[in-house]
Amino acid sequence: MSHTQALCRFLAELNDTHLPEDVLARTEDLYLDWLASALASQGAHPIPLFERYAQKMGPSSGPAQVIVNGASTSAYFAALVNGASSHLVEQDDLHNSSVLHPATVVFPAALAAAQDLGKSGRDLLLASVAGYEAGIRIGEFMGRSHYRIFHTTATVGTLAAAVAVGKLLDFNQEQFINLLGSAGTQAAGLWEFLRDAADSKQLHTAKAAADGLLAAYLTAEGLTGARNILEGDQGLAAGMSSDAEPSKLSADLGSRWALLETSFKFHASCRHTHPAADALLDLMQRERLTAADIAHVETRVHQGAIDVLGRVTVPTSVHQAKFSMGTVLGLIAVHGKAGLTEFHERALTDPAVSSFRDKVSMTLDAEVDGAYPQRWLGRVTVTTLDGRTLHGAIDEPKGDPGNTLSRRELADKFQRLAQFSGARTPLEAHALIEKVWDLRNTASMAHWL
Amino acid sequence: MSHTQALCRFLAELNDTHLPEDVLARTEDLYLDWLASALASQGAHPIPLFERYAQKMGPSSGPAQVIVNGASTSAYFAALVNGASSHLVEQDDLHNSSVLHPATVVFPAALAAAQDLGKSGRDLLLASVAGYEAGIRIGEFMGRSHYRIFHTTATVGTLAAAVAVGKLLDFNQEQFINLLGSAGTQAAGLWEFLRDAADSKQLHTAKAAADGLLAAYLTAEGLTGARNILEGDQGLAAGMSSDAEPSKLSADLGSRWALLETSFKFHASCRHTHPAADALLDLMQRERLTAADIAHVETRVHQGAIDVLGRVTVPTSVHQAKFSMGTVLGLIAVHGKAGLTEFHERALTDPAVSSFRDKVSMTLDAEVDGAYPQRWLGRVTVTTLDGRTLHGAIDEPKGDPGNTLSRRELADKFQRLAQFSGARTPLEAHALIEKVWDLRNTASMAHWL
Repeated sequence: MSHTQALCRFLAELNDTHLPEDVLARTEDLYLDWLASALASQGAHPIPLFERYAQKMGPSSGPAQVIVNGASTSAYFAALVNGASSHLVEQDDLHNSSVLHPATVVFPAALAAAQDLGKSGRDLLLASVAGYEAGIRIGEFMGRSHYRIFHTTATVGTLAAAVAVGKLLDFNQEQFINLLGSAGTQAAGLWEFLRDAADSKQLHTAKAAADGLLAAYLTAEGLTGARNILEGDQGLAAGMSSDAEPSKLSADLGSRWALLETSFKFHASCRHTHPAADALLDLMQRERLTAADIAHVETRVHQGAIDVLGRVTVPTSVHQAKFSMGTVLGLIAVHGKAGLTEFHERALTDPAVSSFRDKVSMTLDAEVDGAYPQRWLGRVTVTTLDGRTLHGAIDEPKGDPGNTLSRRELADKFQRLAQFSGARTPLEAHALIEKVWDLRNTASMAHWL
Repeated sequence: MSHTQALCRFLAELNDTHLPEDVLARTEDLYLDWLASALASQGAHPIPLFERYAQKMGPSSGPAQVIVNGASTSAYFAALVNGASSHLVEQDDLHNSSVLHPATVVFPAALAAAQDLGKSGRDLLLASVAGYEAGIRIGEFMGRSHYRIFHTTATVGTLAAAVAVGKLLDFNQEQFINLLGSAGTQAAGLWEFLRDAADSKQLHTAKAAADGLLAAYLTAEGLTGARNILEGDQGLAAGMSSDAEPSKLSADLGSRWALLETSFKFHASCRHTHPAADALLDLMQRERLTAADIAHVETRVHQGAIDVLGRVTVPTSVHQAKFSMGTVLGLIAVHGKAGLTEFHERALTDPAVSSFRDKVSMTLDAEVDGAYPQRWLGRVTVTTLDGRTLHGAIDEPKGDPGNTLSRRELADKFQRLAQFSGARTPLEAHALIEKVWDLRNTASMAHWL
């Protein structure tokens, strides 16, 4: 049995009774966190473009719901718009070693299909676990070489979304094999947009969720796909990776729950900035430094951080600022935090932040790079104006599995994000939070929002 | 000005007055040929799957038409289903040096958008020329290394379709740059499905046409894309090619009409089999051989033919038989032709064909490989049962630009294809052919079918 076959057998056989309580509960946490990110994007460019596209090309009503505007449409367009919206504010979750943002691709597809099929909250949770477990393993399989050029959340995300929908459609092993074939051959998404601060990140997650759903529905109709799309000579790894490891696909299925390793985002910036941000914050608090005390910050990082963040020198948009190591550290140093509000009110316009930005450099560090992507170490060296050299280090950024957010902290984050865009009042947001905590008892996801 | 910028300026400035008469007329020929391929697929797996998907996810009526069932829907779903259907019977056109099948991705997107926007037949033709010229140059740019793993018609096809729709939306240079970014970052499609005879080829062309259209409509709304998606460090060529040539993107714009170099398919099989098929046919006629006289046929081919056809030894489906060199040559040797009817009635079930199949081998030939992909040379060496060694050679397969099909031959092919599936009676087909020859005078493409 190939690694792909073993993965597909696991996905087909996975059922409710296999899920430990902590996996079920964490899936609810991740779903809440995802919903917050989608709500926070309401009204912000480019989300209304996707809403108008869905109105033009889709049906005027349907079984699935669009989070940012409450419209009902078909499952395909709900997945598309919800996929776009949940990755905009850079607050959605991340799995470290796969460098995959699972929530923004898995949940839009799973919710749309669950609503379309009238499935229960428990079905939705199980399907989402399947999407996380498969997506994370496929991301790990594709390796670091893939991520240098390809946006893993876009490429691998298509397969993760497809798997979640396939689970809601009760696929057997054979159907999962065909599903991976049809999803994998649609996998796309390049990092090139980043240096132009272009809108492709939202296009990527929108399409990954929607294309994954499309693959699953067509597979249910009988469409066949390549049986070895991941490992084959003309497959995904052959075309888009030089360090793929097939054994990652089937390792520890059913004993290791990769979903539990997923990190919540605390800062509203690219995850590659978080280790350094936390290390700097920790150092400044410990040494009682202010921004004005600091002459220079050298961040010692992994290669992936340089690949993704190295393009941005002077950010020209709020979104690009989230990929500027100097801006993120400037917000931390000057304002003590780098949340959505700080980004929107301070990142581009506060002279103290932009002058701090120019004091920050990135250097490849062998220890940090060696630990990555399993561990995201934060290492900074600060030179003070009075001539001292100080070292900051953290081993688990806030939100990492060993330093995770409590339900109280997640609810606070949900309130901040929902109110940032005005999508929900505090009372409405509270009611929605309660609904999420009751997901496992929800008989049907139809009209859930 | 970069090659990409030069291409985008050409696309923006291209207008009706630039098109020579032979380009305009050939575009009508190609459109007719494309329509025939779509009609021929009516009712055949997996096309009804796409029809059902469109009915489930799309609106129940709309401005765009589905060729195989006459349904009206939104432009997105018409492009999707028409893209799937026009590549099924392996009779659609091919541009040699780019190894791109332009019609099956350009026309579905262009027709859907022209119908949606109420554009004229002349607008449709101009937009299609833009799609061909851009798509072919991008295919040549991506090089032979790309085609070894990626299905160029799927990947590059997404950009070709996008350009055609962008032209119908009257894009300026800046919008074309953004459009290429959003289309290029969706480019996907792997050859892996071929060895399993899976259905991905139809998924590829469906998605290329529909995704290209999606990119164009979102660009019109204001979505931005990477400005250097083709040539950039994290762009299409960086991720999916090792021999990209940027100068190909902007070479001879406005003086060389690449559309005129597109070949029509005479045999109903993969184009890689055509040179050998024509060389064998020519040799057998010249030497008055029958299949029973032949002990062995060695076809001397380019590497691309081995990459695509080498996977298939004993075909298990009619579609896979079109990728079996032995089966194609068996049909030629035993029945004198390899059209749709021969494939469906003989390819898998005629013992004379399958025993001939086992007499055929493929060998890499330096001369043939060196000429490819600009020229597709046919070279065969036949050993007869009475011990003779005979050589067959053709330099331009039937349907190539220097050996093209006349309007009479195209009309005959249209009738054969439309009647193969029963999609149109001879009289109906005749009326449709006349409508195509009048395309340049058609005021609006709305309700055209």
